[in-house]
Amino acid sequence: MSDHGYEAGRLNLPFVGISTFGKKEYVSDWDKIEADVAILGAPYDFGCQFRPGARFGPRAVREASTLFSFGHAGAYDHEDDATYLGSDVRIVDIGDADIIHTKTRESHANIEYGVKKILDAGAMPVTIGGDHSVNIPCINAFAEDCAENGPLHVVQIDAHLDFVDERHGVTVGHGNPMRRAIEKDYVTGMTQLGIRNVSSTAKEGYDDARARGSDILSVRQVRKLGTAAVLDRIPQGARYYVTIDIDAFCPSIAPGTGTPSHGGFQYYDVLEILQGLSKRGDVVGIDLVEVAPAYDPSESTQILAAQLLLNFIGFIFHNRQEALARD
Amino acid sequence: MSDHGYEAGRLNLPFVGISTFGKKEYVSDWDKIEADVAILGAPYDFGCQFRPGARFGPRAVREASTLFSFGHAGAYDHEDDATYLGSDVRIVDIGDADIIHTKTRESHANIEYGVKKILDAGAMPVTIGGDHSVNIPCINAFAEDCAENGPLHVVQIDAHLDFVDERHGVTVGHGNPMRRAIEKDYVTGMTQLGIRNVSSTAKEGYDDARARGSDILSVRQVRKLGTAAVLDRIPQGARYYVTIDIDAFCPSIAPGTGTPSHGGFQYYDVLEILQGLSKRGDVVGIDLVEVAPAYDPSESTQILAAQLLLNFIGFIFHNRQEALARD
Amino acid sequence: MSDHGYEAGRLNLPFVGISTFGKKEYVSDWDKIEADVAILGAPYDFGCQFRPGARFGPRAVREASTLFSFGHAGAYDHEDDATYLGSDVRIVDIGDADIIHTKTRESHANIEYGVKKILDAGAMPVTIGGDHSVNIPCINAFAEDCAENGPLHVVQIDAHLDFVDERHGVTVGHGNPMRRAIEKDYVTGMTQLGIRNVSSTAKEGYDDARARGSDILSVRQVRKLGTAAVLDRIPQGARYYVTIDIDAFCPSIAPGTGTPSHGGFQYYDVLEILQGLSKRGDVVGIDLVEVAPAYDPSESTQILAAQLLLNFIGFIFHNRQEALARD
Amino acid sequence: MSDHGYEAGRLNLPFVGISTFGKKEYVSDWDKIEADVAILGAPYDFGCQFRPGARFGPRAVREASTLFSFGHAGAYDHEDDATYLGSDVRIVDIGDADIIHTKTRESHANIEYGVKKILDAGAMPVTIGGDHSVNIPCINAFAEDCAENGPLHVVQIDAHLDFVDERHGVTVGHGNPMRRAIEKDYVTGMTQLGIRNVSSTAKEGYDDARARGSDILSVRQVRKLGTAAVLDRIPQGARYYVTIDIDAFCPSIAPGTGTPSHGGFQYYDVLEILQGLSKRGDVVGIDLVEVAPAYDPSESTQILAAQLLLNFIGFIFHNRQEALARD
Amino acid sequence: MSDHGYEAGRLNLPFVGISTFGKKEYVSDWDKIEADVAILGAPYDFGCQFRPGARFGPRAVREASTLFSFGHAGAYDHEDDATYLGSDVRIVDIGDADIIHTKTRESHANIEYGVKKILDAGAMPVTIGGDHSVNIPCINAFAEDCAENGPLHVVQIDAHLDFVDERHGVTVGHGNPMRRAIEKDYVTGMTQLGIRNVSSTAKEGYDDARARGSDILSVRQVRKLGTAAVLDRIPQGARYYVTIDIDAFCPSIAPGTGTPSHGGFQYYDVLEILQGLSKRGDVVGIDLVEVAPAYDPSESTQILAAQLLLNFIGFIFHNRQEALARD
Amino acid sequence: MSDHGYEAGRLNLPFVGISTFGKKEYVSDWDKIEADVAILGAPYDFGCQFRPGARFGPRAVREASTLFSFGHAGAYDHEDDATYLGSDVRIVDIGDADIIHTKTRESHANIEYGVKKILDAGAMPVTIGGDHSVNIPCINAFAEDCAENGPLHVVQIDAHLDFVDERHGVTVGHGNPMRRAIEKDYVTGMTQLGIRNVSSTAKEGYDDARARGSDILSVRQVRKLGTAAVLDRIPQGARYYVTIDIDAFCPSIAPGTGTPSHGGFQYYDVLEILQGLSKRGDVVGIDLVEVAPAYDPSESTQILAAQLLLNFIGFIFHNRQEALARD
Repeated sequence: MSDHGYEAGRLNLPFVGISTFGKKEYVSDWDKIEADVAILGAPYDFGCQFRPGARFGPRAVREASTLFSFGHAGAYDHEDDATYLGSDVRIVDIGDADIIHTKTRESHANIEYGVKKILDAGAMPVTIGGDHSVNIPCINAFAEDCAENGPLHVVQIDAHLDFVDERHGVTVGHGNPMRRAIEKDYVTGMTQLGIRNVSSTAKEGYDDARARGSDILSVRQVRKLGTAAVLDRIPQGARYYVTIDIDAFCPSIAPGTGTPSHGGFQYYDVLEILQGLSKRGDVVGIDLVEVAPAYDPSESTQILAAQLLLNFIGFIFHNRQEALARD
Repeated sequence: MSDHGYEAGRLNLPFVGISTFGKKEYVSDWDKIEADVAILGAPYDFGCQFRPGARFGPRAVREASTLFSFGHAGAYDHEDDATYLGSDVRIVDIGDADIIHTKTRESHANIEYGVKKILDAGAMPVTIGGDHSVNIPCINAFAEDCAENGPLHVVQIDAHLDFVDERHGVTVGHGNPMRRAIEKDYVTGMTQLGIRNVSSTAKEGYDDARARGSDILSVRQVRKLGTAAVLDRIPQGARYYVTIDIDAFCPSIAPGTGTPSHGGFQYYDVLEILQGLSKRGDVVGIDLVEVAPAYDPSESTQILAAQLLLNFIGFIFHNRQEALARD
Repeated sequence: MSDHGYEAGRLNLPFVGISTFGKKEYVSDWDKIEADVAILGAPYDFGCQFRPGARFGPRAVREASTLFSFGHAGAYDHEDDATYLGSDVRIVDIGDADIIHTKTRESHANIEYGVKKILDAGAMPVTIGGDHSVNIPCINAFAEDCAENGPLHVVQIDAHLDFVDERHGVTVGHGNPMRRAIEKDYVTGMTQLGIRNVSSTAKEGYDDARARGSDILSVRQVRKLGTAAVLDRIPQGARYYVTIDIDAFCPSIAPGTGTPSHGGFQYYDVLEILQGLSKRGDVVGIDLVEVAPAYDPSESTQILAAQLLLNFIGFIFHNRQEALARD
Repeated sequence: MSDHGYEAGRLNLPFVGISTFGKKEYVSDWDKIEADVAILGAPYDFGCQFRPGARFGPRAVREASTLFSFGHAGAYDHEDDATYLGSDVRIVDIGDADIIHTKTRESHANIEYGVKKILDAGAMPVTIGGDHSVNIPCINAFAEDCAENGPLHVVQIDAHLDFVDERHGVTVGHGNPMRRAIEKDYVTGMTQLGIRNVSSTAKEGYDDARARGSDILSVRQVRKLGTAAVLDRIPQGARYYVTIDIDAFCPSIAPGTGTPSHGGFQYYDVLEILQGLSKRGDVVGIDLVEVAPAYDPSESTQILAAQLLLNFIGFIFHNRQEALARD
Repeated sequence: MSDHGYEAGRLNLPFVGISTFGKKEYVSDWDKIEADVAILGAPYDFGCQFRPGARFGPRAVREASTLFSFGHAGAYDHEDDATYLGSDVRIVDIGDADIIHTKTRESHANIEYGVKKILDAGAMPVTIGGDHSVNIPCINAFAEDCAENGPLHVVQIDAHLDFVDERHGVTVGHGNPMRRAIEKDYVTGMTQLGIRNVSSTAKEGYDDARARGSDILSVRQVRKLGTAAVLDRIPQGARYYVTIDIDAFCPSIAPGTGTPSHGGFQYYDVLEILQGLSKRGDVVGIDLVEVAPAYDPSESTQILAAQLLLNFIGFIFHNRQEALARD
Repeated sequence: MSDHGYEAGRLNLPFVGISTFGKKEYVSDWDKIEADVAILGAPYDFGCQFRPGARFGPRAVREASTLFSFGHAGAYDHEDDATYLGSDVRIVDIGDADIIHTKTRESHANIEYGVKKILDAGAMPVTIGGDHSVNIPCINAFAEDCAENGPLHVVQIDAHLDFVDERHGVTVGHGNPMRRAIEKDYVTGMTQLGIRNVSSTAKEGYDDARARGSDILSVRQVRKLGTAAVLDRIPQGARYYVTIDIDAFCPSIAPGTGTPSHGGFQYYDVLEILQGLSKRGDVVGIDLVEVAPAYDPSESTQILAAQLLLNFIGFIFHNRQEALARD
């Protein structure tokens, strides 16, 4: 090892170095993933109905994540008096799924392939979109895993219900993923948080979602209930797949997205739900989608995405360790 | 009709097509307005005291409104379990009043003319500024209508009192409209919400406004009282004219404006007041002003304006129908 | 007609009014196109290989075109001592082709349909992209017209050859249009101007293009030859279809595009070729593609596109009239 | 005096004139400071660990401050029914400390010199950064003043603890100032508000800070306690030095900064603490740092800084006068 | 004098200090102008027909000018082997003319007053706009001076002829200044350079201008003639008033302006004409207008304006000294 | 090897994947550099005298370089009828030198260390700044190499002479590198191209540079001479070190830089000199500095840098092979 290495004492400020997620190791050979968490970029955005550009979400979130890479031996949080993401949590970045312009099916298949390789390696997949349609191959990839380890409860943080079955032949756009998910026999339920205002899903979509076992709460409903009561409505001890559409948040902190909707969540609204969720059961997969940096010169949106993901991953593995310690 | 028509099945995504307000029909002949609501642009901004550019407000709000045009048979709101703006609410866009550079009086006269034509057609005028001085011709245009149908109570949502009588000969700038409004014999009262921090109105303006029957509340006062109590202070069953200066909102969601002021309203603060107001009496006219898109590359401000206007119009006609149904 | 009409004396400044192309009449019924020129938006951009956003090209170019709408009785050009685009040239804007997210074939079909309707109406189609793949349906639409009126010579102004046959199954992306065009039996030749630097077309593409009768010139080659000599290489008296990729231009004046390439054309380089071409034969169709406004806060790119199109249309009809006058 | 003078009646709109802070007099000769408050720019930013650009903070805050310069005889606040910053409060702008590129020690010395000159003149120094390391020379400058007038309690409003002792030899970067301050014998205690999320300070820093007498509260802790209870934890009647890192605020209102951190303060959170503090003891010095305008095209960050500083200065002198009146 | 002074050794980097023009002394008392050159801001922009914002031109150009303030003993130009703007050329910045929102006549009168005060003080006025209509009061201010010292030849660098007599009652907008100038008996001729493309001036305007003695050249005509031949067409030994509309330049270097027009001048095109002009006669006044910074986040436009003005002023006084030396 | 690999058929569009330079392999262990060319980022910018931000130059140039990574088997240039950068040219990206905030000497030492490691590995170093001061450690690193292989002739492409010896104690800022270089006994000469307008170097600097054997040419002088004549002034067969300050270029194509200067080079001006130079002798090292992306939302500057570097590297190795073939 060269004496250039970090071990030998680089300061390694946030702005220095290649932008992998959290400046973690880049693993280009997908047969050699050895990690607890693997980051996959899914830069597909032909499923967007307004402003495109989420294809640059993976690069933007990676770059923003370097801002939070300067705690050396993990990240100390004085509010929790806990150190997250110590060296015992192995995170790798495996780059992006191959995207084929003009081709939705092929691009989605490549995303599914990447998530499967992560699951095969026994790591938790964290997929960074791309538009929300990339959730479809992410969920598809879990078929085998669920056959073995049990079904998923999907927790969606989003402004929009994304529950359109089909319109003009479109079944795998960014308005369809939750409908596609609920169709899986290995998805047993769904919690949809932050849903508000007009969108591409009509009344029938809401009725259908509820009929199929979805729990839909708006931002105001979540706030009125409080974090604890919201968490209580989510099945305990389940295997959670969490899909975060950045437009769930107020455009004030997440302006860089395709279809912004005012009245969204503030930071702690979501952070505390995610922290609670990490204590309530097993988070087995995550995607974070719809970061479109071209509309946010302040980079606030990508910083939010990175900060949220790093904290959420920290919570998950901290609570796994706590749970192990208790056993 | 060509089979190109929407009826025959266009998907008509938000980003597709000419930007009229809500992608509604453009009516260029102002003698042929047949509608419940008519949108008029008033792109005048020589009355602004800091950053100009509200002349591009009408175009920006129109473009943003296309994002909310993809609910087909009206817009379903799951929180209210109501479908707003169904095909029974006829909205048209009549384009802009003619603005004459260097000339304030003539430009204002053209705005007044447009609002009058809308009122003559029996439609509710929704004027998109332009700076807040365009409220002056809007209110002027109501003289005849009020003589026939009764006076107005003006509800202003704004950071600034805009109650300057005259300074350096200026009487129709964006710091003067509320003073001009209260002078009308057909304006019986005023509720001024969101007023905060230093502005061009001095202490005397506040005293004068109160003496003339204005109720002035800051953002913090509105929040402390709560929506219901604020609504209670507004005369019930009156004819309301609502003037919304986008700088009433927190710059976090409305940075694109001429004279931003921190500490402003969040989205639901105002939405709920507007929804309550639409149940409390007749909203007979609206203007929304001071959207200056050049200062907001995220387009958040114009999206807020469009989202707010479409929801407010939805509330008004929903409640009119409910009222009719009750009778 | 209302006395609001332009005839009755609106000043109608550029920033006032709905943004149709050149503030020309919007014709939503595609069975009622009565014009010499019809503008069609083709906001499809899933064919782009780097920065998306050309879906907002049509709206951006329309808005920019209003800057050039303030010459009343046509546009006087003192260098040519000519007045272009007088009231005898009828231009209409027919809005956009319907685009289906995730679906390339269907979106392209809708573009082809729109161009056909224009041709059926006897007007010259001017299509505003969208990415360069929209040229494919534009050319497709000419099959019938060419069967009747004779074949096309395609003149391409572009940084990239766009001559990829197939890669990874992609045949209709923005790297393929010129290959698709030359395959048509009604395309007899091609002039490709501005081609430079590395792109998705490999050496074989160049060989193939030349073998199929294409004349390829770089920016430096065009400048070295001079406008007249370049024009001399284009068959005289042919029916020209002109496809302008805005990235043909130097990024200094056209930064708002998906795949910028330094070393491009300056304004007069292209303007003079287009003016010469309009004298050399019949321009029967135009597309201008790859304007992606999100990357150009100065709006320079869309202003270039609008200025170029309005001038080019002016030249074409001026020379048609001159030709008629000579006969 | 020329009849051009303000006294003789200029309207003096915010956008008119040279940008000194609050359009106050510029005093270039630092031996002739005659004022209650003197503004000093400290445009040093080599101490920043992510996005630089705070060197343009002083110019940006000055320009934004002109927006709030249009109340003539002081600024009337209707919520407090008070007029702040009347002509009896003398504010001057003394320009910037000289900054030497590549040189930290020399630049800091020049800042210290400027603050000392202000203190020597008996005025309250208000230093506009620059990155947070400029707090180090600001505190250094108080040595003599404190020897005479008593020690300081430092109140820090910030996202980050900035309590690193030394890393890689760095002791005076923007992660070190609070550690440097607490080392002074004339700094008797510290209140650190808004601290959250991961940063360059590790757990040891928190322990050390608390051991040395610091009171650390996160944004959520401050909100849970409430303004009054937070103020109660700050020693009453002390001499306060207040250092405001703009990244204490939510990136929604302060995106233009080097190291944004979500979950920050809203406007009134901080305003009310500052107002309360001004009643609780003597504010003897202020710095406001880390405004980096290049990342905020909406100018929201600099407007926040200017609005906050002008209000804070207003509160301080209003309460000094009230206190005098009571005596 | 404090030892803080520049004389005593500040490095005074461009980014340090208050933004007056070239960091020159600010003279607020217009009865005490003692200088060779006085800079006046004229932040009026209600005369603009497309994008407003030139009211921030003076502040933007001042800030950009600080970039060129770091040559100590004048600015050495190695191409000319000359040092310009040594300490013998006294430049002061007198701030801005008072602008009254909604009021054109009053605002223009205040600009005229400021230019007159400069002329009364025997200094050369350099007015920074503001839109091009501010040229009208600038020229008006010369009435008395010309009565004494002889008439003016106006040299205009612009994309647009600005020769509209009256439209819709508008006579003093930004399309009218050259018409207003030629009406003065003390304006004996006009050279209009850079004029191109469609604008608000119709064919009649060109005929009228030529009939009244104007020499109109497009960018291409200027380039074809060459600098020397262009200069030859300008009367030698006259008193020149030079009005520079920044939109004369190619939008590639001057995107931040209200009505951009492609095909404009490059930097040396204009620089060499200005240098030549400074040798050909007496430049007695300058205005530079239409810098609207909101449309140019790169600040390129304001840097161009500052670089051009500083060089032009340098040429003028260098050649005056050379002329004196020759005598 | 996983079947995910590129060999197995990824399309690998420009927007897909981690941003290393040209998507080349990232080598984190500096003892294992096996390549012809190694890219090193040098994100130091405390040496800048106006707008900082060049610390993000390496990341920006890397991301832009992905746009040019889609030619598979090298990049075919039809003008040269040559394929550049085939698989025989091995390029690696070794990440960034470690930068220490507040510390210039240490940061420079780390850059020097990185360049030395590249030289030790027998590869050509290509350093991406950072401000121009990073050239100083780059040149320092060549001491040993030159002792062995012979001295350097430095070719500088820049707007500024950067020949300041010392000012205010500053000797290693971005105004000093050329002075520092010429002091080396292994630097035998210097060619400085593009130098223009006022800067931090005074007349004495020019005299000194010339006295020490520098050849200084402005943009206009270079154009007047022509590429061939310029090349003739550079010693043939020498070992060239080429330092490219992006501000050498016209701000129209390179606005994203700290100290822009109008009148700069266009793309082909420089490209052709670099191509000629690669034929004239051995290019043994390159740095490209002063790309500050925060000032260029169009990303044009970083695209220019990437396009230029990839072409230049292509030329160098193409000509080395041609030379070998000739031998």
